[in-house]
Amino acid sequence: MSINSFGHLFRFTTWGESHGPALGAVVDGCPPGLAIDEGMIQPYLDARRPGQSRFTTQRQEPDQVRILSGVFEGRTTGTPISLLIENTDQRSKDYSEVAKAYRPGHADYAYDAKYGFRDYRGGGRSSARETAARVAAGGVARLVIPEVTILAWVSAIGGDAIDMANFDAAQIGQNPFFCPDAQAAARWEGLVDQARKAGSSLGAVVECVATGVPAGWGAPLYAKLDAELAHAMMGINAVKGVEIGDGFAAAANTGEGNADPMRPADDGRNAGPQFLANHAGGIAGGISTGQPVTVRVAFKPTSSILTPMPTITREGEATELFTKGRHDPCVGIRGVPVVEAMMALVLADQKLLHRGQCG
Amino acid sequence: MSINSFGHLFRFTTWGESHGPALGAVVDGCPPGLAIDEGMIQPYLDARRPGQSRFTTQRQEPDQVRILSGVFEGRTTGTPISLLIENTDQRSKDYSEVAKAYRPGHADYAYDAKYGFRDYRGGGRSSARETAARVAAGGVARLVIPEVTILAWVSAIGGDAIDMANFDAAQIGQNPFFCPDAQAAARWEGLVDQARKAGSSLGAVVECVATGVPAGWGAPLYAKLDAELAHAMMGINAVKGVEIGDGFAAAANTGEGNADPMRPADDGRNAGPQFLANHAGGIAGGISTGQPVTVRVAFKPTSSILTPMPTITREGEATELFTKGRHDPCVGIRGVPVVEAMMALVLADQKLLHRGQCG
Amino acid sequence: MSINSFGHLFRFTTWGESHGPALGAVVDGCPPGLAIDEGMIQPYLDARRPGQSRFTTQRQEPDQVRILSGVFEGRTTGTPISLLIENTDQRSKDYSEVAKAYRPGHADYAYDAKYGFRDYRGGGRSSARETAARVAAGGVARLVIPEVTILAWVSAIGGDAIDMANFDAAQIGQNPFFCPDAQAAARWEGLVDQARKAGSSLGAVVECVATGVPAGWGAPLYAKLDAELAHAMMGINAVKGVEIGDGFAAAANTGEGNADPMRPADDGRNAGPQFLANHAGGIAGGISTGQPVTVRVAFKPTSSILTPMPTITREGEATELFTKGRHDPCVGIRGVPVVEAMMALVLADQKLLHRGQCG
Amino acid sequence: MSINSFGHLFRFTTWGESHGPALGAVVDGCPPGLAIDEGMIQPYLDARRPGQSRFTTQRQEPDQVRILSGVFEGRTTGTPISLLIENTDQRSKDYSEVAKAYRPGHADYAYDAKYGFRDYRGGGRSSARETAARVAAGGVARLVIPEVTILAWVSAIGGDAIDMANFDAAQIGQNPFFCPDAQAAARWEGLVDQARKAGSSLGAVVECVATGVPAGWGAPLYAKLDAELAHAMMGINAVKGVEIGDGFAAAANTGEGNADPMRPADDGRNAGPQFLANHAGGIAGGISTGQPVTVRVAFKPTSSILTPMPTITREGEATELFTKGRHDPCVGIRGVPVVEAMMALVLADQKLLHRGQCG
Repeated sequence: MSINSFGHLFRFTTWGESHGPALGAVVDGCPPGLAIDEGMIQPYLDARRPGQSRFTTQRQEPDQVRILSGVFEGRTTGTPISLLIENTDQRSKDYSEVAKAYRPGHADYAYDAKYGFRDYRGGGRSSARETAARVAAGGVARLVIPEVTILAWVSAIGGDAIDMANFDAAQIGQNPFFCPDAQAAARWEGLVDQARKAGSSLGAVVECVATGVPAGWGAPLYAKLDAELAHAMMGINAVKGVEIGDGFAAAANTGEGNADPMRPADDGRNAGPQFLANHAGGIAGGISTGQPVTVRVAFKPTSSILTPMPTITREGEATELFTKGRHDPCVGIRGVPVVEAMMALVLADQKLLHRGQCG
Repeated sequence: MSINSFGHLFRFTTWGESHGPALGAVVDGCPPGLAIDEGMIQPYLDARRPGQSRFTTQRQEPDQVRILSGVFEGRTTGTPISLLIENTDQRSKDYSEVAKAYRPGHADYAYDAKYGFRDYRGGGRSSARETAARVAAGGVARLVIPEVTILAWVSAIGGDAIDMANFDAAQIGQNPFFCPDAQAAARWEGLVDQARKAGSSLGAVVECVATGVPAGWGAPLYAKLDAELAHAMMGINAVKGVEIGDGFAAAANTGEGNADPMRPADDGRNAGPQFLANHAGGIAGGISTGQPVTVRVAFKPTSSILTPMPTITREGEATELFTKGRHDPCVGIRGVPVVEAMMALVLADQKLLHRGQCG
Repeated sequence: MSINSFGHLFRFTTWGESHGPALGAVVDGCPPGLAIDEGMIQPYLDARRPGQSRFTTQRQEPDQVRILSGVFEGRTTGTPISLLIENTDQRSKDYSEVAKAYRPGHADYAYDAKYGFRDYRGGGRSSARETAARVAAGGVARLVIPEVTILAWVSAIGGDAIDMANFDAAQIGQNPFFCPDAQAAARWEGLVDQARKAGSSLGAVVECVATGVPAGWGAPLYAKLDAELAHAMMGINAVKGVEIGDGFAAAANTGEGNADPMRPADDGRNAGPQFLANHAGGIAGGISTGQPVTVRVAFKPTSSILTPMPTITREGEATELFTKGRHDPCVGIRGVPVVEAMMALVLADQKLLHRGQCG
Repeated sequence: MSINSFGHLFRFTTWGESHGPALGAVVDGCPPGLAIDEGMIQPYLDARRPGQSRFTTQRQEPDQVRILSGVFEGRTTGTPISLLIENTDQRSKDYSEVAKAYRPGHADYAYDAKYGFRDYRGGGRSSARETAARVAAGGVARLVIPEVTILAWVSAIGGDAIDMANFDAAQIGQNPFFCPDAQAAARWEGLVDQARKAGSSLGAVVECVATGVPAGWGAPLYAKLDAELAHAMMGINAVKGVEIGDGFAAAANTGEGNADPMRPADDGRNAGPQFLANHAGGIAGGISTGQPVTVRVAFKPTSSILTPMPTITREGEATELFTKGRHDPCVGIRGVPVVEAMMALVLADQKLLHRGQCG
């Protein structure tokens, strides 16, 4: 059971490997009647697309998405939406080294331990290339939640964090790092370049905020909004940590310091309370409060580096390996559109779940 | 859809509220033929039981678990195991204040926004009392994975962390904090006492390590072992952050610094590699590597404090509220047996999933 | 994976064995705010209750249902509803024969083949006693679909069918057979008595009609309304066949003969079409049409008979066995409330699913 | 929630409409290491392919399946297998009539009632063309259960049944009806021709037997082997009835007449009992007994006929409609490979489920 699906009512299934002919997603449960075409999904894929700067992998993929089903006369029909993305730049390099030995930090050894063998070309199914399918599915999810605005950015690379005082959303699209702080972006250019040239790699932190989520989405237990987000984010390649709201900082706080007091809404009408803080990240008891939903995600540095590392062969003998070829010096950068997509997918699902039970 | 179930093959469903007559869990999918009786589950409930020191809530609950089905002549039959725990100390206090206004930081407002009304007695379904059912289910899960040893502890309270140089597993059961560092335990006694007397509360960090997990459990996507653990842990009451292995520290690291190089196993036989580090926390590509599986979990400070906080009534008018009555000054402490239980439940499920697909 | 759950959004899980201390169901996903108490569920259990006439098993069970969670101040809260029914008449008879050999037609051999051993007391989990839990869950489901009226009856026993010309719904509650044809009921009294006295048993057909189901419930594929009903009904103990609408008679018909032509609604308003026939049983393409949903269910004769039958022991040696003790001479009779319950459970689930996706 | 997926551990999802560019299936959970290529799946699609005789629709589709993922060096990798079949003969006919009014007996009205609009070209998602995707997925399923042999045939058309005394499996592939009785096949040629020429259609019964299923597959409740088969079969387009073993005939039988007595295995070794009858169709208590698993499936006559039938327009006004264009005069015929595929898919899933829980 590989469970390549995610979601309850709004559910998607992805398939495809790094070096197969194509990859794709089947989105099931999308409400009918939503206006949709490829052009509404493509921008998200374009944001994730590799090869757009020297700070990401040089693999060239147009990542043009095709809708093969579930749409009629420009609207969703309520039947499954099949999304297809062709692989065009699976370079026929020599994989004999990777076939024989396990790259440290990669999924090679674990896949072999599980399945007995593996598609070693470019990481096969474990490649971050799979996230293209999620981003496409996320584009459909956004149509389901027009009331929600999702914004993600890189907030730290290699331990060098942005200054929130400099936060400017307009900056995010102006640099190759999805960085909202122009000064940090300038620093990161040198930082990532240095890592890239040294054949090294850097970790990163991605933050994501969803505004417009009404109070009441989520479920008390085992489909808690925060638990579902943690599941979604920790399932992204290279992610090692997830925080909701203040996250680990809350663990060092007191009840008073961590409180989110409430006041009546400004306009006098009972349109939900005005919160005086948002330590909780917009979620209480697993259910949205109407405040912005905030998530922080830790990406480890890419395991593919040029420094030779001790490892073993499939036969269990000692060897050394370094990763030749194209890779992201900081995989967290391209994690930004993926984090946004997963946020959209979780929220679309929770919206439908809420409507089903309480609508 | 409240989705009060967790797991795929080894799946449990919990029910019950803080002030109802009882709570329980139905464990479905347990393999047949395992030796079991109440005495094998009770110790885990005893570890979580409230009222055992002045550092936890003074609610007195024997938390005696009864097995109502799925067991015959001392062995599991493969049919669902119903576990029942009676509530005995639902104090009939005056809930009129909580009924009328929303406690800040609690799930009160979110529940009302979702369901239109709520069982306000002791938090109803959102109470951490529900975790007793998970701990009972976790006791069954442990029978499924005898090859695995699970150990959790509190590693920080209110920002005061243990010193790993002092780590002594034998200490964990010797103090009321599940603390492996005797010096830290001594400090925390003062710290938590102070918070308790001030009517305040403190956050905490819980760490959990599972040793003996063989390589190959987990699944590449959407049921990744790390994603399932993140889901499980973030679904525990008051949890705001989850890390696997180095977690957020990995985001500040380089590829070289974060590498887990491999060497052949010491004994010459190919019994899996010897890893030279475990930054990954025993999981690569969503699949276990055979190294210890390590998780860190952030618990926020209990929202129930004696300091009055601004809030609103159900009618949307401004008021102030503080939480009278019994509560945990540091809810993370009693989170330790819950984290262990969720670890066991995830691993039992993943073991069966792996056997189903690859066995 | 025993999968003791059913349903997608409105989902219930049952547990318990024939001779355990109790059995029950956990109903998850019930919408909040519905008026509910035990008295609204009990009548369905009373209809199914054994020992009410000489034509059903003489086991005496009050089958009093208790609600343990999910209800507050007389209304559902949206959290799981735990229903408990105690077993009170698990007679401590001698099971040594059943323990040693397999009763032909019973699940004894199959359970042993699957699980390696079995709870042989009264059939354990395979006993029709489990259906009490479904009937209780069905009572909750009915609250979710107040627009629907469900009526089931026995239409044939041992091949002796009712005459639809005599159909009188008021008769169903007037005889011990749930028979709408007074003349057939009179004949069956002799028929079933004869079987009972001879230690034999008889098969039966149960029909069920749900009126008031609006057009649009169901799903095109794999959760088709008819497929879900087939699943639900074939999962009832002793059921061997399910028909929707004309069922197998449709297979002997022509396209013209099987057509359900439509006319505009009588009242001129477009309140859905008026259908001139209902061969389809109210379902087209897996989705309800607004016509009555009709199902026919075949119950085999109880396998428990007094005639000794060749069988084998657990060790594989030849022996003979007949079933002493209490049993239903025609298990289909008490199938009527179970069929109604499963109809309610499927429809409640489909209503919520429809609302979630299309609401 | 359209739930276009089926199965628990071995799970497939289909997508595509009659007149879209393609349709397909994603098979998730297939065990790794199985030898596979397109040539091992294609024969099942060829058996189902339309246009091979005058007794099926004249739509010409090569139905060439392509494997897009999940296979490496000729073996399954354990990751999802994406199967794609292009539509090539979506004739650009005039659909204005079908767009405006509802074809009686078709899903047109129900889809509109559910989704608010529909893809009316060739029935869209409700077209039997979707079954090509299931047949492809079934081809993969067969690889998972090499111990099982599945054989299906048509046993009656328009009420004219085969004579089991004439049963000859070798005949099934020798006539265009999948008919094992040469004399019946000869009669059906006239029967179906007559219907075809008259623009009428006929119902049919398909039988399916799976031999080699070991005792122990299935689950006691809600995933009973018979319930899962009923779900699978009733979910096939045009199916209105499902029987396991004797089905409705059992409902007219006595306990003695319906018994399946057991004897020790002939060879003296305890290789499971020898059953003296198979009224149960190889399933007891929802679990396989080791006997052949037998299913009968009723297909209604195709609703597409040339006789004009009263119906209504989308605006609710009276009109008449008959179905021009290509259609199957007896859709049950091409149901044979679909029934076989669903049998394979259910058994593959149950095998993995059994191994997961009890393996």
